[in-house]
Amino acid sequence: MSVNFWIGDDYLKVSIVGATGYGGLELIRLLQNHPHLEIASLHTSSRFGRQIHEDSPHLLHMEYTLEEIVPEDIAKKADIVFLATPSGISVQLAPEFFKLGVKVIDLSGDLRLKNPGNYERWYKHSAAPSEILQEAVYGLSEWNASRIKHAKIIANPGCYPTATLLGLAPLYTEKWATGKDVIVDAKSGVSGAGKSPSAGTHYSEINENFKIYKVHTHQHIPEIEQQLGLWNEESQPISFSTHLVPMTRGIMATMYVKLHRHTSTEELIDLYNTVYENHPFVRVQPMDAFPCTKQVFGSNFCDIGIAFDERTNKATIVSVIDNLMKGAAGQAVQNANIMLGAEESAGLLNIPLYP
Amino acid sequence: MSVNFWIGDDYLKVSIVGATGYGGLELIRLLQNHPHLEIASLHTSSRFGRQIHEDSPHLLHMEYTLEEIVPEDIAKKADIVFLATPSGISVQLAPEFFKLGVKVIDLSGDLRLKNPGNYERWYKHSAAPSEILQEAVYGLSEWNASRIKHAKIIANPGCYPTATLLGLAPLYTEKWATGKDVIVDAKSGVSGAGKSPSAGTHYSEINENFKIYKVHTHQHIPEIEQQLGLWNEESQPISFSTHLVPMTRGIMATMYVKLHRHTSTEELIDLYNTVYENHPFVRVQPMDAFPCTKQVFGSNFCDIGIAFDERTNKATIVSVIDNLMKGAAGQAVQNANIMLGAEESAGLLNIPLYP
Amino acid sequence: MSVNFWIGDDYLKVSIVGATGYGGLELIRLLQNHPHLEIASLHTSSRFGRQIHEDSPHLLHMEYTLEEIVPEDIAKKADIVFLATPSGISVQLAPEFFKLGVKVIDLSGDLRLKNPGNYERWYKHSAAPSEILQEAVYGLSEWNASRIKHAKIIANPGCYPTATLLGLAPLYTEKWATGKDVIVDAKSGVSGAGKSPSAGTHYSEINENFKIYKVHTHQHIPEIEQQLGLWNEESQPISFSTHLVPMTRGIMATMYVKLHRHTSTEELIDLYNTVYENHPFVRVQPMDAFPCTKQVFGSNFCDIGIAFDERTNKATIVSVIDNLMKGAAGQAVQNANIMLGAEESAGLLNIPLYP
Amino acid sequence: MSVNFWIGDDYLKVSIVGATGYGGLELIRLLQNHPHLEIASLHTSSRFGRQIHEDSPHLLHMEYTLEEIVPEDIAKKADIVFLATPSGISVQLAPEFFKLGVKVIDLSGDLRLKNPGNYERWYKHSAAPSEILQEAVYGLSEWNASRIKHAKIIANPGCYPTATLLGLAPLYTEKWATGKDVIVDAKSGVSGAGKSPSAGTHYSEINENFKIYKVHTHQHIPEIEQQLGLWNEESQPISFSTHLVPMTRGIMATMYVKLHRHTSTEELIDLYNTVYENHPFVRVQPMDAFPCTKQVFGSNFCDIGIAFDERTNKATIVSVIDNLMKGAAGQAVQNANIMLGAEESAGLLNIPLYP
Repeated sequence: MSVNFWIGDDYLKVSIVGATGYGGLELIRLLQNHPHLEIASLHTSSRFGRQIHEDSPHLLHMEYTLEEIVPEDIAKKADIVFLATPSGISVQLAPEFFKLGVKVIDLSGDLRLKNPGNYERWYKHSAAPSEILQEAVYGLSEWNASRIKHAKIIANPGCYPTATLLGLAPLYTEKWATGKDVIVDAKSGVSGAGKSPSAGTHYSEINENFKIYKVHTHQHIPEIEQQLGLWNEESQPISFSTHLVPMTRGIMATMYVKLHRHTSTEELIDLYNTVYENHPFVRVQPMDAFPCTKQVFGSNFCDIGIAFDERTNKATIVSVIDNLMKGAAGQAVQNANIMLGAEESAGLLNIPLYP
Repeated sequence: MSVNFWIGDDYLKVSIVGATGYGGLELIRLLQNHPHLEIASLHTSSRFGRQIHEDSPHLLHMEYTLEEIVPEDIAKKADIVFLATPSGISVQLAPEFFKLGVKVIDLSGDLRLKNPGNYERWYKHSAAPSEILQEAVYGLSEWNASRIKHAKIIANPGCYPTATLLGLAPLYTEKWATGKDVIVDAKSGVSGAGKSPSAGTHYSEINENFKIYKVHTHQHIPEIEQQLGLWNEESQPISFSTHLVPMTRGIMATMYVKLHRHTSTEELIDLYNTVYENHPFVRVQPMDAFPCTKQVFGSNFCDIGIAFDERTNKATIVSVIDNLMKGAAGQAVQNANIMLGAEESAGLLNIPLYP
Repeated sequence: MSVNFWIGDDYLKVSIVGATGYGGLELIRLLQNHPHLEIASLHTSSRFGRQIHEDSPHLLHMEYTLEEIVPEDIAKKADIVFLATPSGISVQLAPEFFKLGVKVIDLSGDLRLKNPGNYERWYKHSAAPSEILQEAVYGLSEWNASRIKHAKIIANPGCYPTATLLGLAPLYTEKWATGKDVIVDAKSGVSGAGKSPSAGTHYSEINENFKIYKVHTHQHIPEIEQQLGLWNEESQPISFSTHLVPMTRGIMATMYVKLHRHTSTEELIDLYNTVYENHPFVRVQPMDAFPCTKQVFGSNFCDIGIAFDERTNKATIVSVIDNLMKGAAGQAVQNANIMLGAEESAGLLNIPLYP
Repeated sequence: MSVNFWIGDDYLKVSIVGATGYGGLELIRLLQNHPHLEIASLHTSSRFGRQIHEDSPHLLHMEYTLEEIVPEDIAKKADIVFLATPSGISVQLAPEFFKLGVKVIDLSGDLRLKNPGNYERWYKHSAAPSEILQEAVYGLSEWNASRIKHAKIIANPGCYPTATLLGLAPLYTEKWATGKDVIVDAKSGVSGAGKSPSAGTHYSEINENFKIYKVHTHQHIPEIEQQLGLWNEESQPISFSTHLVPMTRGIMATMYVKLHRHTSTEELIDLYNTVYENHPFVRVQPMDAFPCTKQVFGSNFCDIGIAFDERTNKATIVSVIDNLMKGAAGQAVQNANIMLGAEESAGLLNIPLYP
């Protein structure tokens, strides 16, 4: 039985490192109205001294001065620190906060892979120290809550892995999937590429265009396979590809899965409904309905559609999330809620913005 | 002094007529988390008996059965009814609810023009009864709060008039504008055209396209001029044009105004800051900053940028809103808040979704 | 050896039935500057008597009166008739033109499936007479030119089948593919859904949204499988899914193919380069380059990118086309060129519009 | 009478400096199929040695090696050089080519303003030598053809000035406009900002957003006013503002003009039809029709819609162009056609791409 020792009269204090990026800004939005968490400070590597709204006019009238990243100072103000930084930074910051006794929720990919060599092969950076990697708990909220609750470091999942793993989990954990020949064809809006301008995210190059990128080389592949392997020892490498959709937010993963047995769409939907019964953020679609990304826009939901294909004897699983929410800041706050013993959905149960 | 007699232990009950349109859906989103208002029932002219989420999958897991529009039945459940219907419907429904003693907030254009002939000329429908038109209070929240507070019927302003009037108000009410040769060049996202498919809102016709429409004939012209005339008797017809932007939400009105006197951008900003000092939803931009529609996306803010043009001796005023929020459902809830004596911003103070 | 008996001093005359739809408009655009073909007449089922530019303002100053569809009259004017009509119409029109001795290029799906029962199962219409279906030549230009040359009726391929089949052809015809477990994950711009407004193509529903549709039921599935079966008797049902991208033009098919043997990306690219050596409209990408839809926008090209995945032992093939060009009107004109003995690329070799 | 001395058996040779930018790429597209012009060489400041298709995959299979910018070498190959470079470069290059006897068509803003001080004030660069500025002919094709024909240097107009001036010209040259209180509210697609990535053109910042920018400070203001002053001495400073539309191509200028006399929409349309009678690229819309940007997409047309507003006694003029065509490369080729004595429309009379 867990003790919710953190919730009392006061808000818990949190700091955000990397506050001016898309992940950081989304955290600010979520924390502003959170019933238990309060922003203690916002940090950035280069713009400190400026007001947050100067570069982010949607925050006009919000008064926060951006501060330098000094872990010792942050430790005095914050109970939890969110690291919303590019890969390569948390490798260095996470150990410092760990030593200082500040809980860390890391939105980057730095702490997700248990095997340092694996990290270095896919990320092309030096990995974090092994003890930090071992300490880090993979923050797939629906599947790891008992460990998240007592974690000191959370490795918040990537956007593609969240959509993919929530979609595949019932088939893998219940051993319906053979674990062979799984195809994940994933599509993402452009905000997943972050806020820094580049040729690949220049408006005129993306608009009225559909691209495939990082074919067979995306760094989220080992993250997905690591978790699939934990669920099912027989799982083999997946085919995984990533595409850029001319929109800002949203991810869809379309998945083609070979099963151990012949089944039906009804049976599959039943399975998913059972597995996700007590998980408010996973919404299994009814028969013949398939989700679109817009139906989760601005929310923490992961909507899943399911069909069994009689002709090919495979299941088609379609999973959608908002990449900045369930795929980043939303799940990070969900994990913070779990850590502090609050309702998992505290501050997160808004209706998606539609249209 | 006003008595806030409505707020007690219980939520106030509201019904929405036209719940499946974009205005209705936005009301549902806002009311779900509202601290004082609760949805009593949802009504529609054709889909009653169905669940709201069947046609609106972003509401999956929300349990509301759509009901027929029977004013007598609604009157038993609701303290306030929101009419989120196409023009021509409130002409008939508003008198019925008025007779039944239910407060009405009408999001259509039916009750905004005091002169029935004016309505019939611009809307091409029969006008509502004169006594209803006289009873209706124009719901421009920032400028009419004292009357809104005691109103039985609110004519909620149109999207273009809201952006335009909030932008022009300080110049007109303080008599800086001459009232002559005012040009309002307005641009809107496509959700303003509603949810019914048409050739003009077909995706392939709108995408990668920018259109002008209803040149010199938009029904929002008399609504704007009626209010400008109340603020300044010398005001003359405005040049007003409307354009369709390939985006879903957002309105910008760019306005060119002749002033009685030479001035400076600083002076103008001071004027606007003074006028809007106590209005949380109007955010006057600082010097040299101009708003974009995205900075108010999904919020009830109206952001205003100002510049005086030395070369032409005119002021350029730029006003942006989210057409479904401050331009429709958001302002409707703001008006409900004022009517019930709550904080004007109750349930509305979220940060805009960005990016 | 073929005799190019049709090319002389004069243009060949063509008529377009369904001239106001997107396929018809694209044909008009292509035929305007064609060196050998000339528009004789434009036909429509409902707007006859109007000028083409009245509903299609991009054709302003072009003088064509829309005419009724009377096959006998068309036969007097035209050597070739393009049928750019919704499915169900060519079933009736094609036999009439065939009897009248007018060559037919049918852009609809009506004449593509040899098995009438198959057509009726997937299209939910009555099929064309068997002798017409047998007479019809499948117009996949790069693979059927010798039969197209002498055809009286062309069944112009669908947009998805064109992208898919051109991408799979080398692996199937050369027997590298096993024909098992092939996954085709296809994505299309919205113009593929045609010009008629509908809830599913309403701007506000599509913009900033990514959808999957017709899961396991798309009528292009039997068309693809029919051709794959001709190339390789061992081919089995494919997994095929279709998604809607928030853009107007463009299709990408991402294909995952099991091979009979271990290979390398280089070997695969060599194979494709060899197979498509003399085909100007198929452009095989160099090593490590993958096509985006925009690089073929407004052109008749099909660009193909290829990678062998060492980890899964499968080939990933990425094929892009402009759905209205190589996926419809462009390939139709290419087939007309082949039929009349002209250069296959006559009137079609423009550079894609970029950006 | 003009002698078309340049047209003979051979193509005229042209070089493009700045070939990898959007203006340069559009020139390549237009020149590929041009009946009289042929690309001699392509030049760039930084990527020389690479193939043009390496960074521009839509040109796959096109064989051009990018070369350094050495005016002496270019002079040996080219009769005309197009300068498609950012502002500040032609200031230096144009004098060199002039000395070498190569005709120059400059797409940048460097040579448009006759007054060097004016250039320096608005562009913040040093101006070109006065003799070069005097030599340069303003290339507004429809209004300056007699001088363009004999020009050695063409200052090709800006995109906004082209749309604005073609829209205002009949009212100014025929003295219907008072020249006072003219408002030009202009909107542009994002390709006008060029190919270099920046925070302001980052996809996630532009998509689903509408922005105003450079309020009262756009460098096209003096260009427009210079030409209006030549047409009508009494013309006064205009109010001119520029907005960014979430689309790639297209400009609309909405203009509000005070007239010397009361008139009607019919009379105005007659005036425009008369003035533009022999100009194939200007298409005056019929009564009650207003152009959208898409109806000129990918073409050299400028479409103009006109309405007289009885209520305000002003004319509303709406002018649309494709900013990369009539607003840049298209008009540049049109000017080259005029210079070489060919049909003004040679190589330019394609139907716009629609939808």
